[in-house]
Amino acid sequence: MSANFPPLARRLDGLQSSAIRDLLKLTSRADIISLAGGLPDAELMPRDRIAVAADAALSERSRLQYTESPGWGPLREVLAARESERLGRAVPVDEIFVTHGSQQALSLLAEVLLDPGALVICEDPAYVGALQVFRAAGARIEAVPLDAEGMRLDVLRERLAAGARPAVVHTVSNFHNPGGVTLSPERRRELANLAEQYGFWIIEDDPYGELWFDRPSPAPVATYSPNVIRLSSASKILAPTLRAGWMIAPAQVCRAVELLKQGADLCGSALTQQITADLLADTDWLATHVDSVRRVYGTRAKALVDAVRSRFGDRVTSTDAAGGMFVWVDFTDGTDTTALLPSALDTGVAYVPGNAFAVSTDYAHSMRLCFTTSDEAVLIEAVDRLAKAHAAVGQV
Amino acid sequence: MSANFPPLARRLDGLQSSAIRDLLKLTSRADIISLAGGLPDAELMPRDRIAVAADAALSERSRLQYTESPGWGPLREVLAARESERLGRAVPVDEIFVTHGSQQALSLLAEVLLDPGALVICEDPAYVGALQVFRAAGARIEAVPLDAEGMRLDVLRERLAAGARPAVVHTVSNFHNPGGVTLSPERRRELANLAEQYGFWIIEDDPYGELWFDRPSPAPVATYSPNVIRLSSASKILAPTLRAGWMIAPAQVCRAVELLKQGADLCGSALTQQITADLLADTDWLATHVDSVRRVYGTRAKALVDAVRSRFGDRVTSTDAAGGMFVWVDFTDGTDTTALLPSALDTGVAYVPGNAFAVSTDYAHSMRLCFTTSDEAVLIEAVDRLAKAHAAVGQV
Repeated sequence: MSANFPPLARRLDGLQSSAIRDLLKLTSRADIISLAGGLPDAELMPRDRIAVAADAALSERSRLQYTESPGWGPLREVLAARESERLGRAVPVDEIFVTHGSQQALSLLAEVLLDPGALVICEDPAYVGALQVFRAAGARIEAVPLDAEGMRLDVLRERLAAGARPAVVHTVSNFHNPGGVTLSPERRRELANLAEQYGFWIIEDDPYGELWFDRPSPAPVATYSPNVIRLSSASKILAPTLRAGWMIAPAQVCRAVELLKQGADLCGSALTQQITADLLADTDWLATHVDSVRRVYGTRAKALVDAVRSRFGDRVTSTDAAGGMFVWVDFTDGTDTTALLPSALDTGVAYVPGNAFAVSTDYAHSMRLCFTTSDEAVLIEAVDRLAKAHAAVGQV
Repeated sequence: MSANFPPLARRLDGLQSSAIRDLLKLTSRADIISLAGGLPDAELMPRDRIAVAADAALSERSRLQYTESPGWGPLREVLAARESERLGRAVPVDEIFVTHGSQQALSLLAEVLLDPGALVICEDPAYVGALQVFRAAGARIEAVPLDAEGMRLDVLRERLAAGARPAVVHTVSNFHNPGGVTLSPERRRELANLAEQYGFWIIEDDPYGELWFDRPSPAPVATYSPNVIRLSSASKILAPTLRAGWMIAPAQVCRAVELLKQGADLCGSALTQQITADLLADTDWLATHVDSVRRVYGTRAKALVDAVRSRFGDRVTSTDAAGGMFVWVDFTDGTDTTALLPSALDTGVAYVPGNAFAVSTDYAHSMRLCFTTSDEAVLIEAVDRLAKAHAAVGQV
């Protein structure tokens, strides 16, 4: 049939599935401890509170109907109040747009903000879900490497001075996926200044900002400039099944996204949006709930990082895991993480090799470890297995 | 800010909101009986059954997690069984893809099947949500008029013979929105034959097929050719809040759509998809439920059509409303429905003028009436008001 339908055949050739998704399919074997995933822990999701909210939502028949494209009104109001507090200014409701997870915001924004051939600057290593939509929009992608304080603005500044004119700079500002690091307050301010100086949009992609372990995340990049479109989500603090992401952006950006959302899928679900509003508005309950998630993830993160450092010593450097879901580990002994993977799977542990997230830097000696879905003992066992695999490959 | 951001400014200039949506905003006044909407009746939606299913779904923590991009497995199995029965062949699960309403299927298919400049043939009058996505994909749109038996295949055949080479032909096969008519069995077979002869895809968009009043809808176009991509939805028989649409298509089309869905929004909601699966699998309950919706809508449709015919006599022709949600009325006395609208709103009734759905035919004398959300007495009152407005305009 393909011969008759050239666009379809070309799409199938041209589209690449996420390497991580494909890997995850291979690592669902019961005998493998997977540090390769990127999922929050379902055991920590507030099932009972969601059930109560679902019952309440269904008491109103209007929740069964189509809802407005920018999101169910009361959810947008709750989000406006929440973001007003976070951003330190009164955020009006028409600057709030509810999306089907943050991923939909990225996808619609790529259509709104990018012409084919436009330059998008991402971080290296990058969130691959963002790369995918920017590439699909026909953008040219350049990457700026991360260091311990997030995106290296010295490199960005050089590129801009040399004539680079990005339409969009994308940053995962807190507890980077996959890099684990957080953009420092000084760099946030400077990035915002550069956006105004050179006239580009910043997409501040922030699904993990609430998941800090020791101290709150810095003020959002969006506090420093109206050129920032800020994305967040209920997936990591409540539950992905709600498919509730949101965007805080100038009203005209929201308006353009609304017109595209009508074509993309008309509207979200008033049921899951009311559940989300209900839980986010229950601020005392929410504070206690998020605290407990922080505590559990923080303990797991520390166990994982401690185990990595004690087993591998100076053959690795690792991020501290101050929040979020991921640790980024660099081997300093020349270990190739793609070459190590089959041996690791043999010993019963999975991770994602660094090059799965690489844009233009070589991350052959790096890997991403996710600590959210295993308890401490299992994480320590996972690192033991990784050390065994590493030793085995070392002996070859 | 626009000056700095030319793509955004251009998008805002270029994108058009749905005329119907904008009109609906004006017609939500309490004193107006709106026949302009396109919503199913929330009073008929199975709220209690959905609440039971929601409780059951939430008993499993895994329903809180991300789910697979092509849809929650058990829902795809229920749909495969359902469509196997409808299509008279064993439909494998990899030919079933769950979307966020049918609209998302249209949007993703436009990306998969169309190159910029590709020809798409729609019906005239057309479903505007389809026009919007085909236009956004850069397609050229041509329209083939409807008659009482659906798309005029004599016109399509002439166009093909004259050299037209569509990539896609889009048809709302049952109880057309807005045209009210159903594609006849003979034309279904012929359309399928033309698709194979000329090598185009048919998108058979079928949200209303279950809502027949007197006798079941004809066998789907998809029973006649593998070139048909069939779309359906739970929105009109269960509830829009479930945001559950589905596509039955060759596995390679589903695969291409899957890769795009990962970028568009990762996945749907396992919660709403399990609720949908639960209700669709409960076949005895479902049959009773859908029967009751048919009965109510059928009674309303008949009341509306009878009132239109008795008030306007030979100054109008009207479809019979054998199913679905809409009646299409043509004035034979030269009444311009766009000119009539302000007067109609003054007397307290709203409808959508035919030209809101026009592609290349002039529907200045036509209008779409929706009968789903008012009872018989209200529908009769609405037509009385319409007759008053018509008389008032006639006197000017």
